[in-house]
Formats: sequence, structure tokens, C-alpha cells
Amino acid sequence: MAEAEGLQEACGVFGVVAGGEWPTTLDVAHTTAFALVGLQHRGQESAGIVTSYGDDPHKIFCHKEMGLVNTVFDDHALSRLKGNLAIGHNRYSTAGGSQLVNCQPFVVDTMHGLIAVAHNGELVNAKMLREKVLQRGVGLSTKSDSELMTQLLCLSPPESEESGPDWPARIRQFMSESQTSYCVLLYFGDKIYAFRDPYGNRPLCLGKLMGSPGGRISDSQNDNAECDGYVVSSESCVFTCIGAAYHREVLPGEIVEISRSGFKSVCVVPRAEERKAAFCIFEYVYFARPDSIFEGQMVYNARFRCGEMLAKELPVKADLVSTVPESATPAALGFSKQAGIPYVEVLCKNRYVGRTFIQPSLRLRQIGVAKKFGPLTENFRGKRVVLIDDSIVRGNTMAPIVGLLKQSGAKEVHVRVASPPIKYPCYMGINIPTKEELIANKLSLDKLSVYLGADSVGYLSVDGLVTAVQEGIPKKTKGTGHCTACLTANYPVELEW
Amino acid sequence: MAEAEGLQEACGVFGVVAGGEWPTTLDVAHTTAFALVGLQHRGQESAGIVTSYGDDPHKIFCHKEMGLVNTVFDDHALSRLKGNLAIGHNRYSTAGGSQLVNCQPFVVDTMHGLIAVAHNGELVNAKMLREKVLQRGVGLSTKSDSELMTQLLCLSPPESEESGPDWPARIRQFMSESQTSYCVLLYFGDKIYAFRDPYGNRPLCLGKLMGSPGGRISDSQNDNAECDGYVVSSESCVFTCIGAAYHREVLPGEIVEISRSGFKSVCVVPRAEERKAAFCIFEYVYFARPDSIFEGQMVYNARFRCGEMLAKELPVKADLVSTVPESATPAALGFSKQAGIPYVEVLCKNRYVGRTFIQPSLRLRQIGVAKKFGPLTENFRGKRVVLIDDSIVRGNTMAPIVGLLKQSGAKEVHVRVASPPIKYPCYMGINIPTKEELIANKLSLDKLSVYLGADSVGYLSVDGLVTAVQEGIPKKTKGTGHCTACLTANYPVELEW
Amino acid sequence: MAEAEGLQEACGVFGVVAGGEWPTTLDVAHTTAFALVGLQHRGQESAGIVTSYGDDPHKIFCHKEMGLVNTVFDDHALSRLKGNLAIGHNRYSTAGGSQLVNCQPFVVDTMHGLIAVAHNGELVNAKMLREKVLQRGVGLSTKSDSELMTQLLCLSPPESEESGPDWPARIRQFMSESQTSYCVLLYFGDKIYAFRDPYGNRPLCLGKLMGSPGGRISDSQNDNAECDGYVVSSESCVFTCIGAAYHREVLPGEIVEISRSGFKSVCVVPRAEERKAAFCIFEYVYFARPDSIFEGQMVYNARFRCGEMLAKELPVKADLVSTVPESATPAALGFSKQAGIPYVEVLCKNRYVGRTFIQPSLRLRQIGVAKKFGPLTENFRGKRVVLIDDSIVRGNTMAPIVGLLKQSGAKEVHVRVASPPIKYPCYMGINIPTKEELIANKLSLDKLSVYLGADSVGYLSVDGLVTAVQEGIPKKTKGTGHCTACLTANYPVELEW
Amino acid sequence: MAEAEGLQEACGVFGVVAGGEWPTTLDVAHTTAFALVGLQHRGQESAGIVTSYGDDPHKIFCHKEMGLVNTVFDDHALSRLKGNLAIGHNRYSTAGGSQLVNCQPFVVDTMHGLIAVAHNGELVNAKMLREKVLQRGVGLSTKSDSELMTQLLCLSPPESEESGPDWPARIRQFMSESQTSYCVLLYFGDKIYAFRDPYGNRPLCLGKLMGSPGGRISDSQNDNAECDGYVVSSESCVFTCIGAAYHREVLPGEIVEISRSGFKSVCVVPRAEERKAAFCIFEYVYFARPDSIFEGQMVYNARFRCGEMLAKELPVKADLVSTVPESATPAALGFSKQAGIPYVEVLCKNRYVGRTFIQPSLRLRQIGVAKKFGPLTENFRGKRVVLIDDSIVRGNTMAPIVGLLKQSGAKEVHVRVASPPIKYPCYMGINIPTKEELIANKLSLDKLSVYLGADSVGYLSVDGLVTAVQEGIPKKTKGTGHCTACLTANYPVELEW
Repeated sequence: MAEAEGLQEACGVFGVVAGGEWPTTLDVAHTTAFALVGLQHRGQESAGIVTSYGDDPHKIFCHKEMGLVNTVFDDHALSRLKGNLAIGHNRYSTAGGSQLVNCQPFVVDTMHGLIAVAHNGELVNAKMLREKVLQRGVGLSTKSDSELMTQLLCLSPPESEESGPDWPARIRQFMSESQTSYCVLLYFGDKIYAFRDPYGNRPLCLGKLMGSPGGRISDSQNDNAECDGYVVSSESCVFTCIGAAYHREVLPGEIVEISRSGFKSVCVVPRAEERKAAFCIFEYVYFARPDSIFEGQMVYNARFRCGEMLAKELPVKADLVSTVPESATPAALGFSKQAGIPYVEVLCKNRYVGRTFIQPSLRLRQIGVAKKFGPLTENFRGKRVVLIDDSIVRGNTMAPIVGLLKQSGAKEVHVRVASPPIKYPCYMGINIPTKEELIANKLSLDKLSVYLGADSVGYLSVDGLVTAVQEGIPKKTKGTGHCTACLTANYPVELEW
Repeated sequence: MAEAEGLQEACGVFGVVAGGEWPTTLDVAHTTAFALVGLQHRGQESAGIVTSYGDDPHKIFCHKEMGLVNTVFDDHALSRLKGNLAIGHNRYSTAGGSQLVNCQPFVVDTMHGLIAVAHNGELVNAKMLREKVLQRGVGLSTKSDSELMTQLLCLSPPESEESGPDWPARIRQFMSESQTSYCVLLYFGDKIYAFRDPYGNRPLCLGKLMGSPGGRISDSQNDNAECDGYVVSSESCVFTCIGAAYHREVLPGEIVEISRSGFKSVCVVPRAEERKAAFCIFEYVYFARPDSIFEGQMVYNARFRCGEMLAKELPVKADLVSTVPESATPAALGFSKQAGIPYVEVLCKNRYVGRTFIQPSLRLRQIGVAKKFGPLTENFRGKRVVLIDDSIVRGNTMAPIVGLLKQSGAKEVHVRVASPPIKYPCYMGINIPTKEELIANKLSLDKLSVYLGADSVGYLSVDGLVTAVQEGIPKKTKGTGHCTACLTANYPVELEW
Repeated sequence: MAEAEGLQEACGVFGVVAGGEWPTTLDVAHTTAFALVGLQHRGQESAGIVTSYGDDPHKIFCHKEMGLVNTVFDDHALSRLKGNLAIGHNRYSTAGGSQLVNCQPFVVDTMHGLIAVAHNGELVNAKMLREKVLQRGVGLSTKSDSELMTQLLCLSPPESEESGPDWPARIRQFMSESQTSYCVLLYFGDKIYAFRDPYGNRPLCLGKLMGSPGGRISDSQNDNAECDGYVVSSESCVFTCIGAAYHREVLPGEIVEISRSGFKSVCVVPRAEERKAAFCIFEYVYFARPDSIFEGQMVYNARFRCGEMLAKELPVKADLVSTVPESATPAALGFSKQAGIPYVEVLCKNRYVGRTFIQPSLRLRQIGVAKKFGPLTENFRGKRVVLIDDSIVRGNTMAPIVGLLKQSGAKEVHVRVASPPIKYPCYMGINIPTKEELIANKLSLDKLSVYLGADSVGYLSVDGLVTAVQEGIPKKTKGTGHCTACLTANYPVELEW
Repeated sequence: MAEAEGLQEACGVFGVVAGGEWPTTLDVAHTTAFALVGLQHRGQESAGIVTSYGDDPHKIFCHKEMGLVNTVFDDHALSRLKGNLAIGHNRYSTAGGSQLVNCQPFVVDTMHGLIAVAHNGELVNAKMLREKVLQRGVGLSTKSDSELMTQLLCLSPPESEESGPDWPARIRQFMSESQTSYCVLLYFGDKIYAFRDPYGNRPLCLGKLMGSPGGRISDSQNDNAECDGYVVSSESCVFTCIGAAYHREVLPGEIVEISRSGFKSVCVVPRAEERKAAFCIFEYVYFARPDSIFEGQMVYNARFRCGEMLAKELPVKADLVSTVPESATPAALGFSKQAGIPYVEVLCKNRYVGRTFIQPSLRLRQIGVAKKFGPLTENFRGKRVVLIDDSIVRGNTMAPIVGLLKQSGAKEVHVRVASPPIKYPCYMGINIPTKEELIANKLSLDKLSVYLGADSVGYLSVDGLVTAVQEGIPKKTKGTGHCTACLTANYPVELEW
């Protein structure tokens, strides 16, 4: 239910560098646009692509606008984005507001030529950094972290720089000043620098365009294999639709230089005081696409195990297990399997409703209609239903659904939520309703049950969630550790305001 | 796969008359707009609503435009559509072309005042009827069946008419001249006349606005119960989201007069020569929403039984059964249950792809990327997969999907289609690709298997489909009988050109 | 001031038939679009063009939309309008309302094929005609006179018709049923029929495309000269910009058949009871472009003579004569010459203001700012000014202008209006504010002077206007006579409601 | 003809500060929008307004978009622009390209709060200044001079600054680094700083909102008069339509601080080496509106005198003098008066043509149609015509006009141009076609005459122009001097690239 209730990932980033001799025939703009469609769930407000031939730091092509990828980019717009490399960005505003001027990639002219920056995340110490930039006499024309970060990278030439800009050194300096949260693609010249904050709060992974479709993961492990191009993406789910193979994740704190000759790990900046990594656990719970791979495991399976864990923690006698389509389906199937109760569909989703701006009339509001869903009545009339949801945020969409099932003849409805109650704000790139809006801060479990009209309600525990997620991570995986701040107020870094 | 391959229902219609004393507080425009969103799957090209207070045949309100319901109607547009009754229409062009002038409802001024007509279907003898109207010296300003039908209804006053227009008599006369296919809402004065062709080719059903949500079907059987309003709709799936209860279907050949005092069955025009009814069987297979009710049964269950029948007709040894999401899921669950093979998800659908106008690059076309789907690799690597689809039309989207599964590690992929091969054109309101484009007319089953890269392919038989559909229809249901012309060339009426 | 005060011509029409062998290279769509731009002053709400190859009565091309010609037609839209002949239309709504459905040309399919109709004017007996059509059982989908006229032309085959439609006979029949007001282009097959009502209320003239620019009027008199095409237009002012030469006017009541071989006068339908012709005198006063030719004289000169006549009728002692730019300039120059007082510009017009939708703030309304004009102060400070305007309708724009001149230092301001007071409605195609809004019905001349803040005010007399207009008409000109109904209530036909 | 031939002023600026106690009722956004409409002739690509209450340097309102003022601002947009002061901008791109990101006012956040900058002009040493900013490690996100100027103003705190920003000192420093060309409005806090480059290259003047309309210039000279607000504008022509009175010009090099208590002249920065001022003489010739006041004289009168001078320099025997409407009319009237030859109109301008995107067909191009003008044939047939134009730039619109007059019967056509030949580029804010495109660089006067088809052609001399302009300037006016670089290559500053 996160989808309908204002929990929103902020951004998706993607980059590609064509392999082999330049200029190549690879259409980097098309590849990036396709990938951005695959990352559209991470941000629906604006989209942008920057391309370059990589031979002239003063000549890039840029197109960015408010809107979905497919409205921002048509074949005409793409045909004008020429070159051998590209970075792209989908945005949903956290800091900075919803305006064209905040669209990314952010492009600036520097003394060395043009650079472009695409950023997913939110700088927890943005205020302090902003103050610093302004004190140096630089005017900032937007409120976005991306402009701030870009100006910081411009302003901070380390002493060692002589002949040209030492971007890795500048990035390291930036990392020392701001520890989280960011996954960034920095384009300059014929390279893309991809870097992830030392806490690894937001996801970023590498892949290779292989000249043939599908996830031929095995091939990609061979670093010497010829390939059409090197790609970097917030999520691996886009790789299939662009004909890429998954290579590996960018590590927390790692800077990877991507050029026509491939990936080169520049360095891994450590966390201060040996703190643990803090990968956002809600990427598993809700944000990411189920076919993406994080920390060596498929997101779908983590959700499935959350469902299994939920069945163990909060068993219930019932005739059938079902889902609030579509995001809760893996958890529902996991619950069904663990509990030995058949999985049956009870709700039909109207896929056109989501985009409707027509407000319900007073009458419809009063009767609390579940406008997104139709009941598959014959499947559950007279039955005891366990209804699985991925999360409850504001809690205002579940009550009408329970009502719908009850009025359509369900004997009992037991709500089970495959994640713990959300109680605290996120300062690292996620839009969460205010504390006052979060239902978990307003109602006890008993009262919630009454409020929803359900026969029972239960959440997965924090420990259950962490266990379910972590038991799927292969042993050899480095640098794991998860941020559960929105559930526990246990933030990875001190918050100073 | 029908969705992606050009099989397209042509229209959806909806009407509402507020009950009780007029003017009422019921917002008929909002109610109709909500219902049209629920019928959006039946037509995405244009949308229109006509409203009236019912007290002045010269004063109606009309708004119609090209586009989806939610782009055509915002709160401002709806606020101008005042009144006690409304009819609405979603359109996908068959005859008439895709132009604003063909949008419905079609409104004309007559000697008796304004009438408005909304039509789902296609007149098989349109050419002859058109000739007749033109010969009477009437110019036709569009190519749509709706204008034609409207002028026919205007031109044909039966002798009995004296004081005012006898619409039921005119409708009967029209029905005698054109036997199929249509479901029509005719607004005049303070009434809506809803009528369905004698073959019952397209669906139409009645419901009551009950002042509370959900499908309280039992209540609605009581004709004397007070209700907020009387509604008529192409499908019952919309009833939940507008707070209506299902009442019954309009019978083949029936004319129902809907007024503030309720439904009144005027007459049932019989089919010539005691022919059988011919309700479009593809409404069950693909067009309708699964939560709609036809002939006393829920569409979802008919699809589920098609899956079961398919498992009986074409069994296969496999490790898992899966679906091409989302339309084939009921059939896949039915196959799974019948075959005793676990249901497992193998494909993740990118819900943003469907709306993309960005064409794949040459490279992506060459590698045949399945752009809409991501593989849930860990769920099927090394496994034998039965992949259920609802239908195969042009056949150009299944091959990349099979390729995706194979390259991602599926050991075997067996394609099972929950409907028979589509071979013939429809002249009754459905858009079907040309005969030459239909894969079933191009490749034998063996060659299809090779073409798809599948280990085996199989279709449900026509008998199997008809049996699966009909065994769910309650005994008492009148006037059943199904059109299978696109599968068998067995058209319900002679086609004359 | 007519421009700013709601006096508005309703339509412009234009047609072209390419000469010589078909298909020709003449771009009839471009030619028509250019001509419509030249007729834009006659209607700014919608524009439309219909083209045809002339060899298939079932195949025409049509494009029409709300908006100015240059927004409705771009090169892409024009490239799709192919053929050898075209008719076009600019519209400002009188009857019918401002909606796409009322855009012209109006196209309908008839038993003989497609016809298209473009109409300038207003049928004074529309109500009766409409009743007649509806009684014949025809539904009318718009409220426009054009649909009505088209259906009448379809419905009324005279007895003599056997093999095909006898359009001239049908047009004659229509003319006998409705005597005014209309100038119509009727396209059918390879011909355009151009006809003008027997009263000649609205203008219509013929021209020839001559393969070279400019108004080589002498050449065009030779009917045998080879020419690129034959054109018909509401006004001759468009001829220069399309490379046409003026030929002659269509006579009141005349039907002209235009084909690839030229113009053919079919007949001239006489007025009933030997009444006089009634060409709208406001075409001279304000509507037409000054470079158009009516009844053998240039409109500019008629306006100039109105200025001269005004100086004779209402002389005034002053230092300079000036204009409210731009429409009153010819009259101001005429007044200046007759009175022997120098012509000096006192107002600078901001050409961007006219298109502004920004409403003035309360403060600006209170101080009555003349938002369209800036004062050329140094030209009139301390001087006595005669300010000429073409007409005063509502009278709400002149007061701020007089105020502006006074406050900027004018010693005296004498307002002289080069037409008589408008007092009555027009039922023949002109939009005039209601009787209550017309300043001439509200204030006596003395009070008007006070209201305007002027030192004196005077109108041209009706006799003066008629004399000034008629003395420029060459003696040989047939069928003259002018409608002054809005000034005198002397309507050319009886009005029956 | 400058209008049609690519000579284009680049920008207009306007600012207003409400007088008296804050918050006031003065609608500063509406006032600014109205003024921008009045300055629309100075830039038609984009428009923007920034407003503020003046009490919080971190809170401003901004709206800017591509398009004309009346499309960018409607009542809704204006209602959101609240406050006591505003600056606005119209833009036509010179440097920076035509993109939203370059729209002005340019707003940046600084360590002191938000500032906004609106600029008319072009920095001749922009390249050097840009280099300087980039070397300081600042990234520039646009190519516009406005961002550059803004960052320079941010970066350059003079030593004396302690408590807050000393904007006058920063502006002085900027002026010492860049001497031309600019008129700038800098908003910060509760003040607007208006400054003009030491050469006074572009115009800027001050006015007072007086609570009543018209140019009551006398009143405004009293600095103590109560007034609604203080305004600054590129041209005084806007004052009438906003109810303001002209106060005086901003002097070359002057910095004026505008606050709620009025105007305060901060200082006047002198030109280096006692050079002369260099006000763009083409503001008189073509760019400015004729009702604007520069250097104490009305622009209209300077143009009138240019016409008189032209008649003295290049007399011709003729029957009438006329104008290419509308910009050449003052010069034509001046020529007529000096030469004693009657002024007669010969061309009628179609005011809708200018906005047309429809390209003429091949046939129309071949016959060289003068698409903007219709001939008033009867006014000049058989006559000798002197045709006055304000300027000839590319020379491609005059030939068809001369052709039109000749073919319509003019006996002789003598072209007289009320300004000298344009031969050189401008680097100070004006768009001029390339040297190669300028007709004066391609054809001698004799050949030009043949090319145009005229009986003779003549230009005003540079001396004649300067004399005609300067003799209208009152003696007491300070700091005059004019830039004639586009005519003489005599640039006010050295150009270094």
C-alpha cells in the first residue's frame, strides 16, 4: 500500500559508455531512455539525459523536462542526443521542489569544460554544505543537492592537481565532507565516475551490454569478454530490456571510473569509526523492482521470505491467503507456502485508476469506496481471508478494501503486513509523510484493527524483517548492513540541525 | 498477449438516472466519470458524457474529447455537467476513424427535442442502412454507426405515433432492420432507453446505486428497495467503485426503459428463425475485467476453468506453472490447480512500458528484447516451466519472452494458450488484425513451436473453451449462446456485402 | 473603435479551382491558407479547408480547428490537403456557438457523394427552416446555419433531377425559401458553386490566379487568358498575396459555377417584389480591409470620403486632425484634407495589447487607463485636436483616450465619428452588442460629450454616409443598394419570429 | 523594414517598489505584467517576474517561461506573485541561446539571501569575465550574461564589507571590470538597485506611480509628492498604461537605489579616459516605441526629423510621399512636410501575417508576392511615389513591395531610407544578421536600385542621422553621445577576443 500512501523513492540514475573504438554505432540515448523507463518506479516527476562524444569537454547534448520518460523523450528528442556515452536521471523531488530548474542531470561549465551530475539520495548535512558554498561567494540557483554537490566538486581542487582536474581526488574530498546519502554519476570528458556513499545507503550496480538479450550473468563475470558497452544503474532490473548482463554492485564508498575500456575501481572510501553499512531496507520491502538484485539476492525472494516470516510470527487460521495487488504478491505467496493455506486472488485492480485526477464525490467519499479495486466475490464469499500488504503508511486505503471484502461476503479478514510499522522520518532520499500522518504513530494495534474493520491486524517485526532480508545474502558478499531508521530511529549518522 | 497484439474491444457505455424526487443531490456526472474509468479497458481513444435535468428536451450538457477519461474530464469539466441523468461512452474506433467528430455520445436535435446516443458494437449491415438514409436525402456528417443509427431512429416514425415520439416503437423498427451488433443507450427527455441486439453480442447489465459500497447483490434483487439511482453499464465491474449493486443483465433483444422510478422492461425482440444467441466469447477470454459478471458467472472463474480445461487437454510434465502477467493469471492458477504443479511467478512486468512511444533501437530489435518484462531468474533457473497465455494473436511478443526465460536459465519452456487460435475477422465491434497478420494463419503448431523457441506449444480447443465457459452459467439463465466466429468463421448472421 | 467594442463580422470564405489539365502543380491548400490569413479580420475563432482532386466524390481532405489560420494550419497540415480545388472558411460565431463542431467548411456524405459548404451570413428565417428539416425526420447535430443549409440542399431534389444531382436547381430552390443573408461556396465533385443571396447582403468576388503578382486588373478582364486557377473570395484584398487578379463581383442572387475551365454564371435569382439590393454598409465603414474593392470602388476611398463629408457636416476650429489608429486613419486624412487642418499623429498603438488576457488591476481600472495607446505628447501639447474615429459602439474605450489626451496637455479635444450612431440589432451575420449596451441608445449627444470628457462630439449623418459611399460607385455598376438596418431599423426583409 | 529583416533588440526590463507603509495594496505583479506588455517589442522569446514582500531575503516569488508576456502570465500566475516590489524581464536571446534556463530574472541564493537580476545588454568582455569566474572554481549552469554577472556580484565582496553585503560597492567593482553594455535591475531585500553602464548604451528611466493616468510630467518633478510607487523601465512608453509619470533617465554609469522612500542616486561611475557616452542610435531609428522619451526628447520627433533631413539630403520630384507601415510613418510625414509633397497611404498592412508560420508555396515565392501588404491602388495609379522606410537590413522585403506598387500602376517609385546603411555587427545587445547577409555589404547603391526595381534609392547619411537626433536634445541634458558602430565600425570600447 506504500504506493498509494505517499512513500516514495526519490530518484533513479543510469549511465552508459560505449565500448571499443569511437564513434560507435551504439545508440546510447536510446539505451538510456529504455533504462530510464525501467527505473521509472524510482521517480516520476522529471527525466533527463546528457550525452557526449567524449572528445570535446565543451560539447554535450542535454534534454530534460518535467514528466514521465516517455513524455519527455520521443524519437525526435532522442535523435538529437548523439554520442558515445550518456547519463540519465529520473526524479521525484525530496529537497529542491518540483520544478524544471531542479531536473537532472545537472550540467555546469567549469574551467576544465562541462560536467554533468546525476544524483540519487539526499545529503544529510546539506544545510552545512550549502552554507559553506555560499560563504565562498558562490550563488546557488536551485535548492537541489545536485547543484550543491556540483559546485562543491568544482570549488575543491586538492593541492595535487596540476595539469588537469583530478576528479577522483575531488570526489574523495567530497566524501570526506558528506558521508551519506548518495549514489552519483559524474560525467566528464570521456568518462563517467560512479560513486556511492560510504554507507551504501542507496543502490548502484554495474552491467555490460552483451550484444544479446537476457541475463547471461555468467558471461559477464569474465572481464575480458568483448562487450558493446558498460553500464551503471540504480537497479539491475533494467539490464534485461537493454540487453545487458549484471556485473556487480558498486561497493559502499567505492569510486568506479567507467570508460570505453571498462570498469576501473579507483578506491573505496571507508566509513568513519568503523560504523556499519546502512543500505536502505525499504529498497527490499517496497521501492525496488522485484527482479532487481541487491547484495547477491533477488528482491522478489526477500519479499517472499518476509511473507514466510510473517506466517511464522503471526499465524492465523484461514481458508485462503491473498494479496493487495500487485506489490504484496511475493509476500502473499510466501505466507501461503509457509502457512499451507491456498493462495487465491480476491481483488482485481483497475490499472487506469492510478492516473485519475477526478476526485470522488461526497457520496462516494461517505460510502468509502475502494476505487482502485473490484472484488472477485465468488473467490472468497463465506471464506476466512488473510490479506497481505507490503506496508501500511497513512493507513487510509486499507479500510475501504477490508470493507469491500466484508460487504462482498468475506467471513473474516485478517490483515498481515510484511514490514514493521513506519514511525520516523527519513533524511536520506525517501519521501515519507510527516510523523503526524503515519498511522503507526496514531493508533495502537487494537485500535488499528477496529479502524480497518479487520478481524485482526499484525506487522512483521523489525528483527523478522532484517532476518528475512539477510538470510538471502550470500556469505561472500562484502559490506552489508541495513538502515532501519524509519522503523527504529536508529540513523546511521548523527543528525545535526 | 491479446493486450499487446492488437486485439481490442471497441467501446464501453454507461448510464445513470437518479432515483426519487428531482432535482437530486446525486452527482450523475461524477458517477458516470468514475464508471467510465472502470470501463477504460474497453476503449481508450475518446470519452464523453451527456447530462440533463430531464425536464427540458432542448437543454442538455455535453463534454467529449479524444483521450483517456481522466484527461478528458477534470473537476471543472464535470462541474459543468449538471442534471439528474447521464450517459457516457468510452471509444476505440472500429468504423468511423479516430476523430473528435466521431466521439460519443452522439447528440442531435430532432423535432421532439435533443436525443443522445451511446453505442457499443458494429452494425453488420451498416452499408445498406447508410444507403437507405442517404436515399432519403439526409446528409451524414460522420462515418460512425452512431450517427447512422441516430438518423435511422429519427427518420422512422411508425404510424402509431401521434402526440409524441414513441421511442420503443422506433427502436423495435430499428432492431428489425439491423439484428446485430449493438448495446445502445438512447437518452431522451427524462429517460434512458437501454437496448441490446437480439443476438446479445455485446454485454449490458443493470445495477442500483445503494447508498453504500460493495456488491450487496442480494439487496438489489428487491425491486422495491429505495435506491439513489439506476445504472446501466457494459460491465458490472464498475458497480463497486460507484457504490452500486448488480441487478441483472439486459437480455438479448430487450428494450429497458430507465427512469427515476426504476427499470421497466418494454419488450424482448426475438431473433429471426429461432437462431441462437451469440454473446462474444472473447469477452470471457480477454476483453472483460475479471470481476465482471456475465450470464450469472464471474469472468475470472471462466478463465480459471479455461486453465483447468487446458491442463486436461494438453498436460505436460513440469516443475512450475506461470503466467504472462497479468491477464493470463487466472488461467495459470487454474492450470496449476488441475495439474498439481506449483504456481510460481517468473516474469516481472514493468507497468510503465505500455505507455512508451520510444521505439527500440536496431540493436535492441535484433536481440529481440522482451521490453515489457524482467525475469525473476532465481524462481525458475534450471526448472521446467509451463507458461500460460490468454491468447496469441500476431505472435510477435511471445518469442522474446520464451527467449528471455531460456537465456535466464529455464530448462524447458512449454507454452499453453488458454483460448483457441484466432483465424477470422470480426464484423461485430472488435478490432482484430488482418487475416494475414494472424499467426494462426501463417504457421502450423510445429512451426510455431520452433518460431517461439519453445519446447512445446498448445492451444485450448474450441469445444474446450465453450465447455469451460458454459459450465459456469447457472441453469436458470436465459438466452445464452456464444459467438465463436473469429475462431470458427461461424458468424451468427449472414454477411452480405 | 468598432474593433475594441464588440462589433464583429462573422465569416470569410475563399475557394479555388486549379485551371488547365488535372492534376496540376498548383498548391490549392497553400493558396487557400494564404487567402484565409488575408481574410482573418472577418473571423478569428476557427478556420478550415477542404480539398479534393475532383475525380472522386467520395474522397476529400478536410482540416478544421478552433483558432487563427496560422495556428490551425502548419506546413504539415497543409501537406495532407491535396488536390485540384479547395474551399476555406474563417469563422466568428453568430448562430451556433463557439465549438469545434460548428467549424466550417461543413462536410456531409450524400447519396451522390461528399459535399462541403462554407457560408458567410445568417439566415434570417433559420428558425422556420430548421423546423422544416426536423419535421422531415432529420436530426441536426449542430446549431449552425451551415448544417441546416446543407441538409436543405440534400433534402430538396427538384423533380427534374434524374441521373445526378442538379445543384443549381437545388440552390435556386433554397434561394426561394431563404432570401438573405448568405454568401456560400458549395463544393461537389469537380466544381465549386458560389452563390450570393438576392439582396447581396454580404460581399463575394471572383479572381484569377495569373502566374504573376499584383493586381493586374486589366488582364483579368480577358476571359480567354490562360490562368493558373479561378478563385472566389469574400474580399478582393487577398488577391495580391496569392498572385491573383480581380475579375468581378458575384451579383446579388447570382449562382456562379467554377470549374477548371473558368467561371460560368448559371443564373441570377431576382429579389421578390422588386425590392432594392441591401449590401451591408458597415463593410465599407469598418469590416472590410481598406484595399478591398466593392461595387467598383476601393473601400479606403469610401472611408476617406466619409471623413470629407464629416468635415462638411460638422466643421470645427482646431490646430490638428488625428486618428484613433489604425482603422480611422483614412477618414482622418479625408477630414484633414477637406477642413484644411494638418494631419498629425497623437496616439501610438501598442500592437501587443490586443492579445492580452491579463486584466487590469483595480487601481488601473479606477484611473481609467487607455491601455492600448501611448500619447505622442509633444505633437499636441497646448493644441486643439479633432480626433476621428470610425464608429462608436459601446463607447467605453473613447473616454480614457480623451482623458489621456487632455491630461497630456491637449487644449481641446473634439470627437468626430465617421459613421452614424448604431442603434439596432443585425440579423444578417454581424455581431452587435445588445440594444441596451449601445451607447447611442443610452446617452444624448450632449451627455455623450460630457461622458467622454470631450469638448464636442459629432456623428456622420445616415444620408452623409450613404452619399459618401455611393458617389464612388461607377455608374455602370449593377444591383447596388445598401443595408442601413443597424442605423435606421430599415431591414431589407420582414422579420418574422 | 528592420522588423521583418532580423534586426532585433534583445531585452526589456522593468521594476517597481511600492511606496508608503508595507504591505501595500499596490498589485506589483499586475503592474509589472502590464509594463512588460508595453515593452514586448524589446523581446518576445521569454518573460519573467520576481516579486517579494521585502521583509525576508529568503522568500521571493518567481514565474518565468518561454513565450509572450500574455501567454506566460495569466491572472492565476499573477495572483501567486505577491509582495511590495517586483522586477520583470522580456527577453530575445543574443548570448545564451533560446532556452528556459536562460529566462530572466535570474535568481540565486547567496550567503546574504536571495538576489534576482534582470539585464538588458551584452557584456563585450563576457569571455574574459567568464574565464575569471570559472577560475575561481565556480561552475556556470547557463551561457547567459545574467548568470555570469550575478556570480561576479556574489564573488566580489570588497574589503569594506563587514556586517552585510554592500551591493553598491560590488556593483561599482563590476562596473570597473566591465564597462559596457548593460542596464541592470538587481533585487535584494527591500530594494532594487538600477544601474546603467558608463557608456549608457541601452536606455533606462525612472517614473512614479501617481494614482492617476497619463504623463503628468510636471507633477513628478516634485520629489516630495506622495506616490503609489517608484518604477524603473527600459522605456518610458509603459508609464501611461500603468498610471505612472516620467521622472528622469538613469544616467550613464549611475547606480540608483529604489526603495519605499523613493529614488536615491548612489553614485555615477565615470567612463575611462574621458570617452564619450554611446547611447545606441538605433533605439531612436527603430527599436524604441515612438512615444518613449530619451535624453529629453520624444522618439517620434527624432524620426520625424530624420525624414525631414532625408528630404533635404536626397530631394526627389514626386506626386506623393508614403510609408512602409507602420514604423516608417513618422519619417514619411517629416519628409512630406519638408518636401511639400502630400502624404498619401499606398499600402495596407495585414496585421495577421506577421504571426504566420505558413511558408509561401514555390509559385508564390517565384512571383515574389509581398505577402504582408495590399496595394491601395486608386491612391497611386499613374503617380510618382516616394516610399520611405526606416532602414534596410537584408533587403529582401523591399523588392516585392516596389514590384507590387509598379504592377499596380505606380509611374515611378523612389525609395528613401531614413537611416544609413547597416554594415557592421553589434556586440552590445542587438541581433544583427551576419555581415554577409547585410545588403549594404553586397550591393552598391546603383545595383541596389536595380535589385529593388526602384527608380532611385537613397539612404540618410550618418551625419544627417546624428544631427537629426541630437538637435532635439535639450541643452541641459547631461552625458549624451551616441553609438553608431553598426554604421561606422566606430565601437565605443576596444573589442578584444
